Amino acid sequence: MLTDLLVRDVRPLGGDLTDILILAGRIAGGSAPAGVPVLEGGRRLALPGLVEAHTHLDKSLLGLPWYRNEVGPSLIDKIENERKVRKMLPIDPRRQSELQARLSLSHGSTFIRSHVDVDTECGVSGIEGVMATREALADIVDIDLVAFPQSGMLVRPGTVELLEQALRLGAETVGGLDPCAIDRDPKGHLDTVFALAERFGRGVDIHLHEPGEMGAFSMELIIERTVALGMQGKVMVSHAFCLGMPDAAVVDPLIAALAEARIAIMTTASASRTVPPLKRLVQAGVVVCAGSDGIHDTWGPYGNADMLERAMFVGQRYNLRRDDELRLALDVVTTGGARALGLEGYGLAPGCYGDLVLVEAETVAEAVAQRHGRRTVVKRGRVVAKDGVTLP
Amino acid sequence: MLTDLLVRDVRPLGGDLTDILILAGRIAGGSAPAGVPVLEGGRRLALPGLVEAHTHLDKSLLGLPWYRNEVGPSLIDKIENERKVRKMLPIDPRRQSELQARLSLSHGSTFIRSHVDVDTECGVSGIEGVMATREALADIVDIDLVAFPQSGMLVRPGTVELLEQALRLGAETVGGLDPCAIDRDPKGHLDTVFALAERFGRGVDIHLHEPGEMGAFSMELIIERTVALGMQGKVMVSHAFCLGMPDAAVVDPLIAALAEARIAIMTTASASRTVPPLKRLVQAGVVVCAGSDGIHDTWGPYGNADMLERAMFVGQRYNLRRDDELRLALDVVTTGGARALGLEGYGLAPGCYGDLVLVEAETVAEAVAQRHGRRTVVKRGRVVAKDGVTLP
Repeated sequence: MLTDLLVRDVRPLGGDLTDILILAGRIAGGSAPAGVPVLEGGRRLALPGLVEAHTHLDKSLLGLPWYRNEVGPSLIDKIENERKVRKMLPIDPRRQSELQARLSLSHGSTFIRSHVDVDTECGVSGIEGVMATREALADIVDIDLVAFPQSGMLVRPGTVELLEQALRLGAETVGGLDPCAIDRDPKGHLDTVFALAERFGRGVDIHLHEPGEMGAFSMELIIERTVALGMQGKVMVSHAFCLGMPDAAVVDPLIAALAEARIAIMTTASASRTVPPLKRLVQAGVVVCAGSDGIHDTWGPYGNADMLERAMFVGQRYNLRRDDELRLALDVVTTGGARALGLEGYGLAPGCYGDLVLVEAETVAEAVAQRHGRRTVVKRGRVVAKDGVTLP
Repeated sequence: MLTDLLVRDVRPLGGDLTDILILAGRIAGGSAPAGVPVLEGGRRLALPGLVEAHTHLDKSLLGLPWYRNEVGPSLIDKIENERKVRKMLPIDPRRQSELQARLSLSHGSTFIRSHVDVDTECGVSGIEGVMATREALADIVDIDLVAFPQSGMLVRPGTVELLEQALRLGAETVGGLDPCAIDRDPKGHLDTVFALAERFGRGVDIHLHEPGEMGAFSMELIIERTVALGMQGKVMVSHAFCLGMPDAAVVDPLIAALAEARIAIMTTASASRTVPPLKRLVQAGVVVCAGSDGIHDTWGPYGNADMLERAMFVGQRYNLRRDDELRLALDVVTTGGARALGLEGYGLAPGCYGDLVLVEAETVAEAVAQRHGRRTVVKRGRVVAKDGVTLP
């Protein structure tokens, strides 16, 4: 839906007071034609729509009775518990994904990349559910799907065929997961993932939780394949905890190679794990984006889908305190996400899509550090959330 | 003020539905006498009043125009910037401390320990301001003051005399700060701090940011003095980043000695620093409490004074995911704080003070992980905040 809207009296990124005119869904220069609907900005800060670059829309427990988590500590514990619990709890991917997408939107995220589980037990039902939500919400939020082999790929025969099916159904991106630690066959895992990407002409997004040298090895293999297949700019590594290891002799060459291969890095700014070195990555030219990861699911109880709060977590994790540093935290959840996901027409300049979030804050730093609620959100000129409440 | 109140239909710590009767400010057994005022709990979770064990009420910038932080990275940069800025900004300790204390209270904190700057520039004006707030709010929140030599003590002659003055005025606790890194004289610094504590019969609370072996050395000196002076149970070490170092051969003996000397540890669960090993400390019998530290001041832009959110930060920093683990995060901001501050009559049992916070949540884990707003807070039987708004 291509809508006209005059957003009056806002301060783009905390700058001077101005109006933002949106015509046919895109930001326009010049003055407003007669009859354009007006949204009063009330001097609020205007940010471009936030980008949720990594979540799992298919399996949040939002709206269900509180799930009492008694899961063991390892990654495998969590994967196996989830498969078990999914048979018992009414986790309908269609319903859960719409609940979470609307929650995201109420906080200002107008773009969402969702990994969606594909395995030999749930098949592609998650993909179908999230795709139905994507269609239902097409006018108010953009959703991008990653076909994600959460339970492992080569270790569970039949999974590759299901991933193919997910890609044929319309998932944009091929997912992967810990090539050493889960599939126990880094070459086999990554050859398969990249072969799928090449065959279907899609990008790649790999969950890489592997720490230290093991993670660095998997990352080298990812970089090698990205370059060999000419897939620069189409690959993301999510989490990348290994880049947080202290050994600069290992990390620095990896960062240079990531920049060269134009591979993006996604971080949740995890407080409990080593994290990729944000400033060094950005200085080297690597695109860094952020995501909520799971929102209250069987993996963990946290998350509220607010990417401005995520920017605050970025700030806290990287000890960003100065106003100019907090601008970097905002970049991660805005332009970083847009570049990582290859979004066309992103930003506040004329010609960009009219996707905005209005926040009560004096400066960008205040918006990030204090993340005031009651936001108003605009998607391609349409007011989709007003003062924190998603419109029907 | 000793008030009667019947709090109807609440679930203490997520347990069975019950009423809590408060008579003359304390929780009573039995049934309510006629005419006792009723507060409808609406099946909410009841927690004991939260304990803010470490903040700086005197220097928050709450309510002032956004402060654009351009401060350098070191501790000394922040200390010197603050002294400079304090002359330019209207940071009135009396006003700022009341604003922050009321904000704390609206989130459910009914006890606050505040470090208050004492130095040769501001003298004891911060102490006087926060003491005036303490008196004004005596019926609704308990405030405990630490006379804190933020700018260093021995390196700034005249500071010790000002600390004495602060203690005579009524500050409960003697503060200290990085005996090696700031005062450059760990023996001199700690001998002076503990001598003041002995002379005035007060406890000690020392900011220890010093990392690694340096921090471990300072901590040894603190433990030695605590034991030598028989001050077991009266000393707290705040931050204690050094306990987060990986070398168990250094850390384990320190933990054992802290337990033996009954020294409490305060953590903010900093996402960017090494943190004390929570579970190992608790298992060894060391009391661990938590604090917000500065709430949007010249040091940094973060903070909202919500100790339930702080419990979430504890959960995220220590990767607590199971429901039983999140109970530990709650303990840190409730019973941990009460034990660390030596609060008498703390808890939900008959005989305890009627200090409660009611939270919309099914379980303790949900209260911590989702930290829903609109809390209702009771102090010694008096309703002091209703649905998130402090009553006048």
